Amino acid sequence: MTLIRSMSTNEEFIGYYLVKEVEIKQTNATPPKEYLDLVLCDASGQVPAKLWDASPADKESIHPMELVKVQGVVQSYRERPQVKIMRIRKTNEADGVSLTEFIRSAPVSPEDLLNTIRSVIQQISDSDVRTIVAFCVRKVEDKLSHYPAAKMHHHAYFAGLAYHMVRMLEIGDFLCRQRPFLNADLIRAGIILHDIAKPEEMVAQLGIVTDYSMQGKLLGHISMASNWITEAAITLGIDLQSEKVLLLQHIVLSHHNLGEWGSPVQPQTAEAVALHHIDSLDAKMQMVEDALESAAAHEEWTTPIRGLENKAMYRHKF
Amino acid sequence: MTLIRSMSTNEEFIGYYLVKEVEIKQTNATPPKEYLDLVLCDASGQVPAKLWDASPADKESIHPMELVKVQGVVQSYRERPQVKIMRIRKTNEADGVSLTEFIRSAPVSPEDLLNTIRSVIQQISDSDVRTIVAFCVRKVEDKLSHYPAAKMHHHAYFAGLAYHMVRMLEIGDFLCRQRPFLNADLIRAGIILHDIAKPEEMVAQLGIVTDYSMQGKLLGHISMASNWITEAAITLGIDLQSEKVLLLQHIVLSHHNLGEWGSPVQPQTAEAVALHHIDSLDAKMQMVEDALESAAAHEEWTTPIRGLENKAMYRHKF
Amino acid sequence: MTLIRSMSTNEEFIGYYLVKEVEIKQTNATPPKEYLDLVLCDASGQVPAKLWDASPADKESIHPMELVKVQGVVQSYRERPQVKIMRIRKTNEADGVSLTEFIRSAPVSPEDLLNTIRSVIQQISDSDVRTIVAFCVRKVEDKLSHYPAAKMHHHAYFAGLAYHMVRMLEIGDFLCRQRPFLNADLIRAGIILHDIAKPEEMVAQLGIVTDYSMQGKLLGHISMASNWITEAAITLGIDLQSEKVLLLQHIVLSHHNLGEWGSPVQPQTAEAVALHHIDSLDAKMQMVEDALESAAAHEEWTTPIRGLENKAMYRHKF
Amino acid sequence: MTLIRSMSTNEEFIGYYLVKEVEIKQTNATPPKEYLDLVLCDASGQVPAKLWDASPADKESIHPMELVKVQGVVQSYRERPQVKIMRIRKTNEADGVSLTEFIRSAPVSPEDLLNTIRSVIQQISDSDVRTIVAFCVRKVEDKLSHYPAAKMHHHAYFAGLAYHMVRMLEIGDFLCRQRPFLNADLIRAGIILHDIAKPEEMVAQLGIVTDYSMQGKLLGHISMASNWITEAAITLGIDLQSEKVLLLQHIVLSHHNLGEWGSPVQPQTAEAVALHHIDSLDAKMQMVEDALESAAAHEEWTTPIRGLENKAMYRHKF
Amino acid sequence: MTLIRSMSTNEEFIGYYLVKEVEIKQTNATPPKEYLDLVLCDASGQVPAKLWDASPADKESIHPMELVKVQGVVQSYRERPQVKIMRIRKTNEADGVSLTEFIRSAPVSPEDLLNTIRSVIQQISDSDVRTIVAFCVRKVEDKLSHYPAAKMHHHAYFAGLAYHMVRMLEIGDFLCRQRPFLNADLIRAGIILHDIAKPEEMVAQLGIVTDYSMQGKLLGHISMASNWITEAAITLGIDLQSEKVLLLQHIVLSHHNLGEWGSPVQPQTAEAVALHHIDSLDAKMQMVEDALESAAAHEEWTTPIRGLENKAMYRHKF
Amino acid sequence: MTLIRSMSTNEEFIGYYLVKEVEIKQTNATPPKEYLDLVLCDASGQVPAKLWDASPADKESIHPMELVKVQGVVQSYRERPQVKIMRIRKTNEADGVSLTEFIRSAPVSPEDLLNTIRSVIQQISDSDVRTIVAFCVRKVEDKLSHYPAAKMHHHAYFAGLAYHMVRMLEIGDFLCRQRPFLNADLIRAGIILHDIAKPEEMVAQLGIVTDYSMQGKLLGHISMASNWITEAAITLGIDLQSEKVLLLQHIVLSHHNLGEWGSPVQPQTAEAVALHHIDSLDAKMQMVEDALESAAAHEEWTTPIRGLENKAMYRHKF
Repeated sequence: MTLIRSMSTNEEFIGYYLVKEVEIKQTNATPPKEYLDLVLCDASGQVPAKLWDASPADKESIHPMELVKVQGVVQSYRERPQVKIMRIRKTNEADGVSLTEFIRSAPVSPEDLLNTIRSVIQQISDSDVRTIVAFCVRKVEDKLSHYPAAKMHHHAYFAGLAYHMVRMLEIGDFLCRQRPFLNADLIRAGIILHDIAKPEEMVAQLGIVTDYSMQGKLLGHISMASNWITEAAITLGIDLQSEKVLLLQHIVLSHHNLGEWGSPVQPQTAEAVALHHIDSLDAKMQMVEDALESAAAHEEWTTPIRGLENKAMYRHKF
Repeated sequence: MTLIRSMSTNEEFIGYYLVKEVEIKQTNATPPKEYLDLVLCDASGQVPAKLWDASPADKESIHPMELVKVQGVVQSYRERPQVKIMRIRKTNEADGVSLTEFIRSAPVSPEDLLNTIRSVIQQISDSDVRTIVAFCVRKVEDKLSHYPAAKMHHHAYFAGLAYHMVRMLEIGDFLCRQRPFLNADLIRAGIILHDIAKPEEMVAQLGIVTDYSMQGKLLGHISMASNWITEAAITLGIDLQSEKVLLLQHIVLSHHNLGEWGSPVQPQTAEAVALHHIDSLDAKMQMVEDALESAAAHEEWTTPIRGLENKAMYRHKF
Repeated sequence: MTLIRSMSTNEEFIGYYLVKEVEIKQTNATPPKEYLDLVLCDASGQVPAKLWDASPADKESIHPMELVKVQGVVQSYRERPQVKIMRIRKTNEADGVSLTEFIRSAPVSPEDLLNTIRSVIQQISDSDVRTIVAFCVRKVEDKLSHYPAAKMHHHAYFAGLAYHMVRMLEIGDFLCRQRPFLNADLIRAGIILHDIAKPEEMVAQLGIVTDYSMQGKLLGHISMASNWITEAAITLGIDLQSEKVLLLQHIVLSHHNLGEWGSPVQPQTAEAVALHHIDSLDAKMQMVEDALESAAAHEEWTTPIRGLENKAMYRHKF
Repeated sequence: MTLIRSMSTNEEFIGYYLVKEVEIKQTNATPPKEYLDLVLCDASGQVPAKLWDASPADKESIHPMELVKVQGVVQSYRERPQVKIMRIRKTNEADGVSLTEFIRSAPVSPEDLLNTIRSVIQQISDSDVRTIVAFCVRKVEDKLSHYPAAKMHHHAYFAGLAYHMVRMLEIGDFLCRQRPFLNADLIRAGIILHDIAKPEEMVAQLGIVTDYSMQGKLLGHISMASNWITEAAITLGIDLQSEKVLLLQHIVLSHHNLGEWGSPVQPQTAEAVALHHIDSLDAKMQMVEDALESAAAHEEWTTPIRGLENKAMYRHKF
Repeated sequence: MTLIRSMSTNEEFIGYYLVKEVEIKQTNATPPKEYLDLVLCDASGQVPAKLWDASPADKESIHPMELVKVQGVVQSYRERPQVKIMRIRKTNEADGVSLTEFIRSAPVSPEDLLNTIRSVIQQISDSDVRTIVAFCVRKVEDKLSHYPAAKMHHHAYFAGLAYHMVRMLEIGDFLCRQRPFLNADLIRAGIILHDIAKPEEMVAQLGIVTDYSMQGKLLGHISMASNWITEAAITLGIDLQSEKVLLLQHIVLSHHNLGEWGSPVQPQTAEAVALHHIDSLDAKMQMVEDALESAAAHEEWTTPIRGLENKAMYRHKF
Repeated sequence: MTLIRSMSTNEEFIGYYLVKEVEIKQTNATPPKEYLDLVLCDASGQVPAKLWDASPADKESIHPMELVKVQGVVQSYRERPQVKIMRIRKTNEADGVSLTEFIRSAPVSPEDLLNTIRSVIQQISDSDVRTIVAFCVRKVEDKLSHYPAAKMHHHAYFAGLAYHMVRMLEIGDFLCRQRPFLNADLIRAGIILHDIAKPEEMVAQLGIVTDYSMQGKLLGHISMASNWITEAAITLGIDLQSEKVLLLQHIVLSHHNLGEWGSPVQPQTAEAVALHHIDSLDAKMQMVEDALESAAAHEEWTTPIRGLENKAMYRHKF
């Protein structure tokens, strides 16, 4: 089967793909003809595709976010590859393919990621902090198993958010060992809470963010998480004025570091400073790793990375 | 009695003043002598003052934020006026002076301001919005009668915050009449809630902010107010996900307009856009009015105003 | 008749529209065929349109900024609607349609707007200020009845500039009553003069700005208006050094507030500070109101508004 | 006679100096004593000075901007030199000293500078441009012989403005020869007009700016010069709409290049672009030259230069 | 022969052009047909072109950066001209045309430019400085005869870099005469060295930059030139710590003036300040001159110039 | 012995201190008296001190950067502590104190730090990279044992630079294990080289930076290190164009990440991105740790930290 990343012009192929988008459109001919305009994807990338002579059955049966079997030829349109579909049909059980094979995913399974997160919560020694964290995680537990961490910036794939958390927890563990004056409970809680509201801020399917929610636009995940901590404390009977509640809210509110990046306050505790830098280190390194992986093996330079001053990365041979 | 704003060099005077600060210090003489280093103020301004030969009784009896009767002479020190105190004593009932005469205050009495605010709350037609607003106001009702709106920027005097609210409510009323598509409930609630957490963010006495609270520094009044709305909704049994709760939180969170000014989200409803501009209009006009009033009558230019690009204002004769 | 804002794909329609642009182009066929490429508009919006088989008569008779009767069908081209024209002809008197029905206009008639402006001029009590204002208004009186206030930013429609002035005068009136230390003559004159040179800065027809004039680009409306006040004073025999002339020029020069927004000086009088905020309040609120009105009724979010940090507005149901 | 730049601690000296500032102050002693607090200057720099036992005659006779003969000793106060005055008296004719020897001046005499400017005006071939330039120069002719070009930034000394003009005219001449497509009339007129209103923007005496005028603050020299060109054209009967008037105003308005540096429009003609760079080149090179000259000969580094990113200049020995 | 800048729609023409780009593409027809998609250019500009029925011989024989003879017709595609090719063939000797006629070039021949640079090097009086400059020039001597100074910003044509150097040397000469305190050796060396590494930073052919080199991206021409000076000094046995080596490196490192423009240090010698302004003056004036020349004679405004705040230039008739 | 950090007003004490600065000054008395103006320090902080009646012997014997025994009393001057010295003498061997006890130092001994660095160099597997690193370290080996990492920003104490390197090496090790696609040789070499030129950029004694060197100001440590790598490669016979040399120079040049922070290029390899974030993480965490340690134990807030948006850190009790 031909991976989308490896398709070359004029190649004919047969394979299974995920329909990311599909729309019925009309040509400019007189009388106009209807055709299907699709975006196909697999774990390696995506490509536009056209079914020029779409039968009524085709128009009925092809839906977004479903798998199809396609026979087609790769053409070049405006210097970018485009598939001309010869035959297309929905897959069935006999094909033995499943959705998650066709999307980009974190390199660790969602189950393992969630287990790690759950076990770290258990390591939090202060019971108030532990139960507040557990309360907030419970709010998004279903989505945490598959949500990406962002729309495009970093970890933008299936289970990307949980993967980001787990990697940050590894860095956090190292840092608490290197600098014992840091409070490990706050570091762990901060890592798990800082982006915890993202699944309610964004609308995503199969790891792909399609929009932001109304609440996400009007409040943002930072203030949402702060409100959730308030809600958790009230529900769990923890004093809203207690230092530990304020410290958790402070870490969440300050984790983007600067006002222009969305934080209403700047880090003012050791753990808040640490969290911002752990977050930044993990996000940037993942952007680099993902960009190098997405680039074809023979390419010396990746595509420009928005979160890194729009710079491309050089794949050295050293 | 000599107003501080009108003191001229070499003038001798007797009068009542408020002790804003007082400290016992030592001269460099051998052996060193102790003296009292004070800041005196009245409603017209403030001036540094020295009591060079402080008796033990003086050191005992003079305290900050209390009224004193002073006989002194105005000297010039580093080109700024400084009072050399000849005699000083605490005031007593017989003097017939009261603290609030000696501090800068809003031009309307706290009682009238609070009554206006309370009556506007009653005009909010939606009962959920009305009770959320009332809940939050109740949290700071005592302080609202005397807190300033800011440390230095604007309305930095006794009852300045309530005065700012009331003036904004007047503008809000006008604007709702001029542009009926605006929702008057949201405008009123937004005006009352936008700075409602300031009395807990700042530490103030007699209208003078001396510091920010720990909570104020770690969370800021914007996020504090957002949390309070969450708390109000839970306490009052109002759905946290309801549009009205989100709209109130959105107005509060966005009222500084830009991230670099402390708002984690930007205004995205008509009322949030309106609130930001009402706030800005009232604050800037008050800065101008206060600066012109503080400047001596013969001065053509006020001192530079920080919130207005550090520009001085010209007092025209037109 | 089908409003452009309400056109839906595959719909056939007959109606009157304004030709905003028209050009003769060639297809890529061999031999190439000529067709008409148009932009049609009405008060609700605009849409591209093609007349694939244009007769010589069509090419002769269809001109920009004229009304046509069209029979066509709505197609989708690159996911945006496009009209395929079946029949088209110029309108005639018998059709009973007039240009101004087909363009976006201020909600108040130009006559009423100009009458308001004229009557406010009469309310200016200082005769020098009054005649300077009248002199400048006379320079653009014809254009003031139909010019927009800007190319795209705000009030970008027929009589938008006069409407902006009148609404600002309402706010100015309110503010002078709320803060009597403001000089009403300067506020009124400032409002009328601040954008008075825009009709000479921009080239517009039917409320649509097509370009900036050479003078507009080289001087800008701010400096043009300052020069006009100089010209008015010389013509009317008013001392160029008099405070009132300087105050008027200062208000005009400073009304964009910051250098990066085009003002060579920052506001330094109470009235100049007020004018900037009145201008800003009216412009921003109108952007919001217009964006909500332009969005289809079922849309929760408007298109992004450039003048408001490129944010879309949420149409709440509260 | 000891130059101020060369004074060293504990040195005793007798010499003539200019009194830049003088004030009667009181010591903190009981009873306080009056003393004279002065700033003395000569062409090489300035120094604070104290006359501890000032006689009534001293207090009467010493005035700012007058010459005095001083016997004193150099002390160190807060690590900076300060003169303790032993004897002081006003100079008289017999001393044979004149004010202009004691101030920093352009290295060319005012007469020569003005003659150069006048002769360049005569070289302008277009008579309208020539008479407009002459009209504006006439407005400030007296002040042009001695005004500085700025308060501190550059050419901040006697006749600095005229010197700046003349040096720019030299560069302009070179550039017109190197790039003949430039219009020499516009370059010459632009150079003479661009800062022509500075003498009315600033209040200066002996080359020292003490303040900005009211008009200078409210309009700024850029808009003032634009208004003057309008006034000149009206007075001389030149069409206000003619291209040549607009081009002159454009050069003046755009010469600070960016809005944040005070220009309401950006350069949009070849000559306007050239003028900005000629202005910048001359101002920056003069800052460097003046800083190197002011620094003591043995100093490797000058004091930081504000207009050059606050960098000190290294005096190399190459 | 028809110059590309003068082509008008529907015009038929025969002429010689340079093939800037060529690619074989497929139409969307069924079965798809192959066609040649080209960009043709001459010294006056460039235009896209299509050869719809490309023979196998055409596909073989047409290569980028070679000359062709073309018979074609000018069409309009998306409002921009596009050539439909009727006949095309490679040129041969008999045609008597040569590559350099068809590209944009500096107005002075490469030989003359290089001779000027070589003779200026001989004028450098300090032998260490002279040999360091010569060493660095030798590294890029071949490329210096034809490389542009930049990809798009300025002097983006054949021999543009050498032309930029020579014009700067003229300005440098003038400035050293006007301000004799400047060291002429450093000015000359600085001008020749400041962009000397550009030919290794960029990949260019016939004056057109197609990419940046790997070294260019990772180090940049500023640090490359600094390294070359180190290499030169070691090779030539000149002390790396000597002031002259540091001064040359400082001029190179600081010539972009600000960190955000790529300079790791800011100018801190008179010559470094001068160099930055000479560079800027020459680059900006050339942008203006080139833009005016590229614009059709009847156009009042050039296209916007990126390096000049994206402003178009007005071609006045004065 | 009384630590400077713990001194309280009016306390009398005897102890050993380091003289950080000392100067002979004169009082304003008539005749003026000479006194010694000192800054004393120990490992806990520093304090100004005065010896009012300095004997000639005192003036002779007290020198900066030497140890003294002091008997004194703590006074308050302008609200900050100041020591009035009663008796002072130089220390002698019998006192048994040594300089390094009295200065702020890294918490690990210089010997251990240097050993770690040397052993990490041995772990670099590529011999070219290893010898280049060793070459550069050798240039500053003496200074590396005691230089601070910066003047004030972070690690501003004895052996601070080596401590910063070693801590970064720990983080680098962790990161290479967490993300094996990173090249450990480049990470180690990058960490050791990135600030390697700082000891030549700054002038420091006992961990205190007193100035920047001429070379440091004109080139900066970033370009100096790049030049050193060039020098190392030439000396060691390694190809200057080899990828490994470029990669090392790229890491060094880009490690400040942005142009405005001093990097002429932005990170464009995985290791360069990693290095910047490792550097930032270690520097910021150390700022926090040092600030908390310097603050008196009872203080809830540290002094503001410049490198952290000038925010003070809250010392929580959680």
